[in-house]
Amino acid sequence: MARTRKKGPGRRNALYAQSGGVTAVINASALGVIEACRRHRDRIGHLYAGRDGIVGALTEDLIDIGREDAATIRALRHPPPGAFGSARYKLKDLERDRAKYERLIEVFRAHDIGYFFYNGGNDSMDTALKLSQLGEQLGYHVACIGIPKTVDNDLPVTDCCPGFGSVAKYVAVSTLEASLDVASMARTSTRVFILEVMGRHAGWIAAAGGLAARKAGDPPHVILFPEIAFDRERFLARVKETVEQKGYCVIVASEGTRDAQGQFLSDMGTRDAFGHVQLGGVAPTLASMIKQAHGYKYHWALADYLQRSARHIASRVDLEQAYGGGRAGGELGVAGKNAVMPVIRRKSSKPYRWDIGSVAIEQVANREKMVPRNFITADGFGITAAGRRYLEPLIGGEAYPPYRNGIPAYATLKGARVRRRLTTTFVI
Amino acid sequence: MARTRKKGPGRRNALYAQSGGVTAVINASALGVIEACRRHRDRIGHLYAGRDGIVGALTEDLIDIGREDAATIRALRHPPPGAFGSARYKLKDLERDRAKYERLIEVFRAHDIGYFFYNGGNDSMDTALKLSQLGEQLGYHVACIGIPKTVDNDLPVTDCCPGFGSVAKYVAVSTLEASLDVASMARTSTRVFILEVMGRHAGWIAAAGGLAARKAGDPPHVILFPEIAFDRERFLARVKETVEQKGYCVIVASEGTRDAQGQFLSDMGTRDAFGHVQLGGVAPTLASMIKQAHGYKYHWALADYLQRSARHIASRVDLEQAYGGGRAGGELGVAGKNAVMPVIRRKSSKPYRWDIGSVAIEQVANREKMVPRNFITADGFGITAAGRRYLEPLIGGEAYPPYRNGIPAYATLKGARVRRRLTTTFVI
Repeated sequence: MARTRKKGPGRRNALYAQSGGVTAVINASALGVIEACRRHRDRIGHLYAGRDGIVGALTEDLIDIGREDAATIRALRHPPPGAFGSARYKLKDLERDRAKYERLIEVFRAHDIGYFFYNGGNDSMDTALKLSQLGEQLGYHVACIGIPKTVDNDLPVTDCCPGFGSVAKYVAVSTLEASLDVASMARTSTRVFILEVMGRHAGWIAAAGGLAARKAGDPPHVILFPEIAFDRERFLARVKETVEQKGYCVIVASEGTRDAQGQFLSDMGTRDAFGHVQLGGVAPTLASMIKQAHGYKYHWALADYLQRSARHIASRVDLEQAYGGGRAGGELGVAGKNAVMPVIRRKSSKPYRWDIGSVAIEQVANREKMVPRNFITADGFGITAAGRRYLEPLIGGEAYPPYRNGIPAYATLKGARVRRRLTTTFVI
Repeated sequence: MARTRKKGPGRRNALYAQSGGVTAVINASALGVIEACRRHRDRIGHLYAGRDGIVGALTEDLIDIGREDAATIRALRHPPPGAFGSARYKLKDLERDRAKYERLIEVFRAHDIGYFFYNGGNDSMDTALKLSQLGEQLGYHVACIGIPKTVDNDLPVTDCCPGFGSVAKYVAVSTLEASLDVASMARTSTRVFILEVMGRHAGWIAAAGGLAARKAGDPPHVILFPEIAFDRERFLARVKETVEQKGYCVIVASEGTRDAQGQFLSDMGTRDAFGHVQLGGVAPTLASMIKQAHGYKYHWALADYLQRSARHIASRVDLEQAYGGGRAGGELGVAGKNAVMPVIRRKSSKPYRWDIGSVAIEQVANREKMVPRNFITADGFGITAAGRRYLEPLIGGEAYPPYRNGIPAYATLKGARVRRRLTTTFVI
């Protein structure tokens, strides 16, 4: 993109910012936005990114994307996750955080930002909506476009969220591999294996573990969803029955697993041999529970950030949707839309066909989409055929990054800072 | 392979067995053995596998590999790990476990096993050696060939162990991806990330985390090796310094991290807010230590079995060496060798060139190769240029398995049982 250009009629600058936890494909959305903006140089002048997301916008620390090499921009399809930096920084409602929203409008005004592309989940959509509203109140027009992104897959309306397909693929593949490992040695070694996965409120990621099974009875034998109240006795009985029938038991547990009173297992704590409370994740809590009840040898894994950043095993479908979401968001902005978000629309599951529409942000902001009951088996421990039909296309296809010296190659942004125009500062 | 055949002069049957934890590429070694045996039908009649490793041999539960489809056999290059089953079942010395060794010879005699290919690590090599010795004592000749396999990379003489390159690649790639994730959000979120990896005695797997760095100062910022005594104060100071300089700190910790008294951190326990001892892995122990000392927000991951079974990100070099080791082992047996093991010999590091030689098993049995001091930086927290020169070629190249429905495709063995010839039984 040219570094300087005349400001034509109706031409304004654009700001892109990432928000919250990264995904394996978040930069593909950035690439989509960038390419859409480049197609409309008559409407969009400079394209900036907030360094560390909204924090960069608040502190007037903007990256000039136009000063990056074309090759670096193209490499956004690959690692690293979160090239421009992101932030876990929630803006509350307009009353409580009005000063922050006003500061954003102040920075936007100083840099003639007419388009704001905010790439995040539920909270970010809420911020984009409020910003758009406050801009109108203050007489400053800025098109606020949400670009969907969340590994949790909990945004409503859209068929799925960019970022989810890749974490789902990681979890399905890892569950399969670990299951084959356990199966091969169960006769003389580990009987129970537990994989703890993300998803504190919605069980989409745990559900994806079910894709490791090719037929009924294949591992994972137990999936624990936040949507289904955890019942210790039923769970322990199922584990025992599985070990007795199959020789081993593989469990995929959401970090959000909770009991009928809504208490998270991860907060519950178990007691060790000395009667001391043990705090920690869901996996060690379950392992300890099984050990005490049945004495089985166990192993457990906690994938944590490895699952959401696993670009090496990204879903090709997910990568395409992430790019498509960014691209569509850019086009929506140029088309004069405001407070909207692109959504994935499923046309058919087999073969998987989809396109991109859009929705008013207020329909998605601060709303969460849980795993519907008909995707979960009657016993609450697995996914149904309907659940599989929904999930399976999302992990379809591989999209390997290039490698150098055995690890994924990635380009590093220059991250050139846009000259400050304000004399005021903002402290985070 | 034909199901029945005339027994020619000098033609005897062969038995292949896997031992201990699987690796991502263990079946490639099986494929190598099978293909070598097929090339010598004049010497090797039937080829069997022990179901669940040595347990199958002891209980006379043998799989007739000749009854598997050719396509299934070719698919052994891909998942699953441990196609024939494996066992964690150690035979002690000849005095204490003589009955077991004699039972093995009894089964071998019943099935005219003249070649025993044992695919495992240090313990397994010891078993192969003793079996060969006892056979001679009892007047029963069986060529016992060790096929090297261990993710721990701790067998001496051989340049590296098949299985290690793939776990090393998994750890290097995962460390890179998680580091980029943490870096992108450190300003407002997680400051410290800890990845706990396998390797209770030797720090090879932890060392591989160092390959995620492209240049000095890149993450991981701290590696903890079993070879270096853990010093709490020095560790905490390094973490603080790193967070202050870089904004975040990434740590790769071996499960075998121990202090100067040899006490494992994982056995040490920390105390929670209520003064209760917390047991668990190294990662939560370190996280808790850092939280108490510095208050940083942390995350940690425990890859456990995911790392050793990760066929989806196997090293191509490792896959070739695993296959090559199996193939060479088969050839050594046919050539009349006994109590030997193929070894990888490094010819050059850049470009990486290697071939396969062999060594007497007694030179490798029950010996462990630790990470040498000159591979570890003076401060004990990283790998040196020499360490990198050794490690980097081993993770070279990718070897993706085929996929179906978004997950790795794999063939399932028929596992047809060889007719029993003994009336005696053996209880495990």
